[in-house]
Amino acid sequence: MRKNAPLITLAFAAISSLSAARADEGMWTLNVFPSDRVKAAYGFAPDQAWLDHVRLSSLRLARGCSAAFVSPQGLVQTNHHCAQGCISQLSTATEDLVARGFYAAEAKDERKCANTEVNQLIAITDVTSRVTEAIAGKSGKVLADAKKAINATITRECSEGNAAIRCDVVELYHGGIYNLYRYRRYQDVRLVFAPEMAIAFFGGDPDNFEFPRYDLDVTYLRVYADDRQLDSSANYLRYAKADARPGDLTFTSGHPGRTDRLQTVADLEFQRDVTLPRGLFQDSELRGILTEFSATGAERARIAKSQLFGIENSLKARKGRFEALVDPAIIKARAVSEAALRAKVDADPQLHEQYGPAWDNVRGALAEYRGMRDRHDYTDQGFRSRLFGLAKTLVRRATEVTKPDETRLGEFTSANYPSLRQGVLSEAPIYPELEKLTMTFAFTKLREVLGPDDAFVRKVLGKETPEALAAALIDGTGLADVKLRRSLLEADEATIAASTDPMIVFARRLNPDMRAVRRAYEDDIGARLTKSYGEIANAMFKIYGTATYPDATFTLRISYGSVKGYRQDGRDVFPVTNFGGAFARATGADPFRLPDSWIAAQNSLDMAQSFNIATDNDIIGGNSGSPVIDKAGEVVGLIFDGNIQSLGGDYGYDGAENRAVAVAVGALRQALARIYRADRIVEELGR
Amino acid sequence: MRKNAPLITLAFAAISSLSAARADEGMWTLNVFPSDRVKAAYGFAPDQAWLDHVRLSSLRLARGCSAAFVSPQGLVQTNHHCAQGCISQLSTATEDLVARGFYAAEAKDERKCANTEVNQLIAITDVTSRVTEAIAGKSGKVLADAKKAINATITRECSEGNAAIRCDVVELYHGGIYNLYRYRRYQDVRLVFAPEMAIAFFGGDPDNFEFPRYDLDVTYLRVYADDRQLDSSANYLRYAKADARPGDLTFTSGHPGRTDRLQTVADLEFQRDVTLPRGLFQDSELRGILTEFSATGAERARIAKSQLFGIENSLKARKGRFEALVDPAIIKARAVSEAALRAKVDADPQLHEQYGPAWDNVRGALAEYRGMRDRHDYTDQGFRSRLFGLAKTLVRRATEVTKPDETRLGEFTSANYPSLRQGVLSEAPIYPELEKLTMTFAFTKLREVLGPDDAFVRKVLGKETPEALAAALIDGTGLADVKLRRSLLEADEATIAASTDPMIVFARRLNPDMRAVRRAYEDDIGARLTKSYGEIANAMFKIYGTATYPDATFTLRISYGSVKGYRQDGRDVFPVTNFGGAFARATGADPFRLPDSWIAAQNSLDMAQSFNIATDNDIIGGNSGSPVIDKAGEVVGLIFDGNIQSLGGDYGYDGAENRAVAVAVGALRQALARIYRADRIVEELGR
Repeated sequence: MRKNAPLITLAFAAISSLSAARADEGMWTLNVFPSDRVKAAYGFAPDQAWLDHVRLSSLRLARGCSAAFVSPQGLVQTNHHCAQGCISQLSTATEDLVARGFYAAEAKDERKCANTEVNQLIAITDVTSRVTEAIAGKSGKVLADAKKAINATITRECSEGNAAIRCDVVELYHGGIYNLYRYRRYQDVRLVFAPEMAIAFFGGDPDNFEFPRYDLDVTYLRVYADDRQLDSSANYLRYAKADARPGDLTFTSGHPGRTDRLQTVADLEFQRDVTLPRGLFQDSELRGILTEFSATGAERARIAKSQLFGIENSLKARKGRFEALVDPAIIKARAVSEAALRAKVDADPQLHEQYGPAWDNVRGALAEYRGMRDRHDYTDQGFRSRLFGLAKTLVRRATEVTKPDETRLGEFTSANYPSLRQGVLSEAPIYPELEKLTMTFAFTKLREVLGPDDAFVRKVLGKETPEALAAALIDGTGLADVKLRRSLLEADEATIAASTDPMIVFARRLNPDMRAVRRAYEDDIGARLTKSYGEIANAMFKIYGTATYPDATFTLRISYGSVKGYRQDGRDVFPVTNFGGAFARATGADPFRLPDSWIAAQNSLDMAQSFNIATDNDIIGGNSGSPVIDKAGEVVGLIFDGNIQSLGGDYGYDGAENRAVAVAVGALRQALARIYRADRIVEELGR
Repeated sequence: MRKNAPLITLAFAAISSLSAARADEGMWTLNVFPSDRVKAAYGFAPDQAWLDHVRLSSLRLARGCSAAFVSPQGLVQTNHHCAQGCISQLSTATEDLVARGFYAAEAKDERKCANTEVNQLIAITDVTSRVTEAIAGKSGKVLADAKKAINATITRECSEGNAAIRCDVVELYHGGIYNLYRYRRYQDVRLVFAPEMAIAFFGGDPDNFEFPRYDLDVTYLRVYADDRQLDSSANYLRYAKADARPGDLTFTSGHPGRTDRLQTVADLEFQRDVTLPRGLFQDSELRGILTEFSATGAERARIAKSQLFGIENSLKARKGRFEALVDPAIIKARAVSEAALRAKVDADPQLHEQYGPAWDNVRGALAEYRGMRDRHDYTDQGFRSRLFGLAKTLVRRATEVTKPDETRLGEFTSANYPSLRQGVLSEAPIYPELEKLTMTFAFTKLREVLGPDDAFVRKVLGKETPEALAAALIDGTGLADVKLRRSLLEADEATIAASTDPMIVFARRLNPDMRAVRRAYEDDIGARLTKSYGEIANAMFKIYGTATYPDATFTLRISYGSVKGYRQDGRDVFPVTNFGGAFARATGADPFRLPDSWIAAQNSLDMAQSFNIATDNDIIGGNSGSPVIDKAGEVVGLIFDGNIQSLGGDYGYDGAENRAVAVAVGALRQALARIYRADRIVEELGR
């Protein structure tokens, strides 16, 4: 452990003094941005035009990252680790683009990512009254059904059957406000440039979430429309001419995935005691399996790399959250702010009547959920197999599409269908050996957690071993063939019911149990949490107003801050590293080995050029790939990480040491120009 | 999760009503046994002769299990999983005794276990006043030194330089009482009989800690003295003629390893937040590595099996403890009993003065320890390599033996030296491939936890990768050769200092850092905890007397109870299974595959014969191998497990559902006679 307990300022606790201190805390929505606070702290107030331009230039990678247009021709900047799925899918045993990098020297060489969807936020509208009226006074199954129906109705009206439009009803403040986010959806996305993973992830897992850092964690993609480069000239972010320096104002515009800054003490305890440790035990074991699998052959290492990286990254992040929660300070502070809010509610007879029981109801629902969570999680699952996931989707689709939107499972509504369809028809390679490995693991854990005598476990395994069952299913299925998937995606219920593909048969047999468990959760625990959290949010608005930001929801947020050092273990950490530092840190052995391209270019490099920068912008997982923007709206960096102290940021922000970590714009320019000679891209980004 | 929160009756809370209910709770020492309570509950009061006979018939396997003499010729009954180290060490690539079992048809075929020490408890004396006078009024380094010195003095006087005598100062009630345990030590122990692992551990990890069960978890060893079968005719336990039935009184006599029923709330929180999760994260990953290593070849599976089994068993047990601690009921109950004791202390000015601050001092010491525990654990460690452990021992020994006993590290005192020597000179095979695997893992975790820039990490790794360093050390060292170890075990400091064996060089270089970190812990945190826990124990004695039993300390304890069912998930669980049930549960696939010997003997078996039994005896890890004894002092079973509900037994005992699980004596007889035709053993055990 390299740090002491952070002094977390919690959103709730800080509400009453929001304007007092210069606190750079906050992941602000684009329609409620506190320009006056930025002005007070930094002397610059973003106006509506600035905000609109940033919004339309910012992008979301629908499967979990942030990005931005950085040229008029649809060029997109994101992280290497965000595009790794695509890079890995385009690789083969003889051409490992993850290891050696990729550069399309000409436009025609740009290669299509099979499974990448990009979203651009074109409008936000408030639908709070529509949603709350639809669910008012309801509970249990009736509430769950009503919420699902109003969501489906609103999003269908919004997308108007146009697959190029994506609409999501976003639940802010845990149900205090509902906004409709309308996106333009792009599904033709191509790989333009990626460096070697050795420099994109220099320092590997040991240096992950650390600073100082020396990572060129960038990938350039390009959005196409009608098979041509997209015209993004109306909204893109120019590269700044100069790097940001310590003290300079910085904005990030991206999609933080999830925070828990407004959740109840009971919810935090549930995470500390149940969600985080159980997930960490299991993923730690899978990490060990994938590590040793990778040690037994170069090709095995290649096919497992993307998954292993994802698990290691997630393990480190979640361990940070777990460590934050077992630090008694955080839950104690939350208990204090929760008690203060409850005291105000209880002091007013009407508020007490309406909202008083909400906190205990959350605690009660979660206490019950403790006993059934494993059954929920382990029944309606994907067995860590893409082929099984496809089978389950195909089986469900045939039935779901016969229903009206309002009663379908959420992922099958007409508004969501285009994303689902892209996933099913993706040409991304599927590796049977890896599928068997992880599916065997999933079956083994299922049996371990629910026990060998459990009825569902017996239905899954019969008298087979996990290994034998996984091998039979994966060797037997034809679903690796996209043509078969395409035909089954258009098949009716009778055709699906008649399929003899063993994976389809397996999914068909398990589907009723899986559906039932999911439904039972939604109608009971899920509905109770929805209701209680909505009440808590309303109580909060009535007492404190809406002066704070909502918890992160993987929707567009802007944070503001500045390039800024911090103290660690009694020493000052300077917020800027340079190229010379990377060469000094290199040992020649993984994960501290610089790529050959860097060694070859060494003498041509400006070693004093900034490489990575730390800022006190308030970000979290999902913000990866966010542009760092200056006052002028120009790119000065590319977010790729937070420091280890920021991992507790899920629960609160500590301006003294929480830091976002980004690649400096000058580092991107220097690497492209002098190491990779990617002249076409250098031109396009503007000199 | 297959159970609801148990209703734990906590030792402290129950003290005032100890005699009221028929509670079978308690791991009682042999010198303070509550015969009157057994009499009240079951109508039978063990007298001193009964207790002495049981004590002298009971045995401890020094590396972590229980056992008993069961014949006049030194025959020892223990669990297969307790002897698995020996069975595995006697196996080779072509003769896998773990898989196929072992039976010495004649006495001369019995095969020596390289690394097994057996202890027989021959006397208990009180040394509380000697120890407490030696440490009275001291703190910090002075306290740590004084405690170490008095321990060394007492044990040296006791063992009188006789390697056949082992003496331990046992700290009971966390320092409230110190007793001197004098053992006869046996180091010539041989393997007589072991069944196939497939039946010793039928059901494998999925059925581990479950009931109903069908395991023949037994191994017979024999103690030799002067190369002849030991004469144990004075004290051994006869096999009963009949099996125990539901309701029958049962005793267990064994060595529970550790409980935390008297520890403070702060200590339980430390386990919940730090010790258990961090250990579980890491061992889960190692489990994954060993699982996948085993999947890549039969010989790899064989050499890793013993370690993988140990890790899986320990993971399941520790997960049970973790789940018990995150259940809010346990810590809340402990807080109540702790507050009650503190209130009584605070109500008396003199007690308040003497003992009042002790609880806060424990909390304070543990809060500090949170920040330094990783450094402590990861610096003074063995890198999961037996070869490194040997090197470290050899390096330290040369220096330690030049000092007087009183100032040596504990394991090098003359009283402890014989056990250490046996370990160093053990002929047990060492597998370089497995050593490299686990040492690489240990180096990787060291770097992950302390960070690549940590000074100790840099001293260990330099610019090497974990893989390369482990390979260089293990390929380079000669310590796999017992002859070299023997010569270095007798070498002086100069010889060790001149050694060029790379593992010795490595251990020599790291030893000062390792010693310093260990010493810093002992002088600071360790000393503070010793002092405060001694105060808490004294406060408890003054207020409640000594009507309860001390926490487990891997020393001999007797528990009493009866064969007894329980309710689970709304159903009654009958406490006895039979042979027919094993055949019904078999699927033919691991881990539910019965060995060929069982299939072959199937028609000769009495399928109604009891197989495993559940009793409400209060046991915990370390009790494995304990005999289950009836009133007559005869063996009716062999403890090998507890049910899943008993895993919280570390923190409290719940008589409603905590169960010990044992092989019935009749099952042992039937298997030996009809399946294994082990006539010589059947005769020796008495018809």
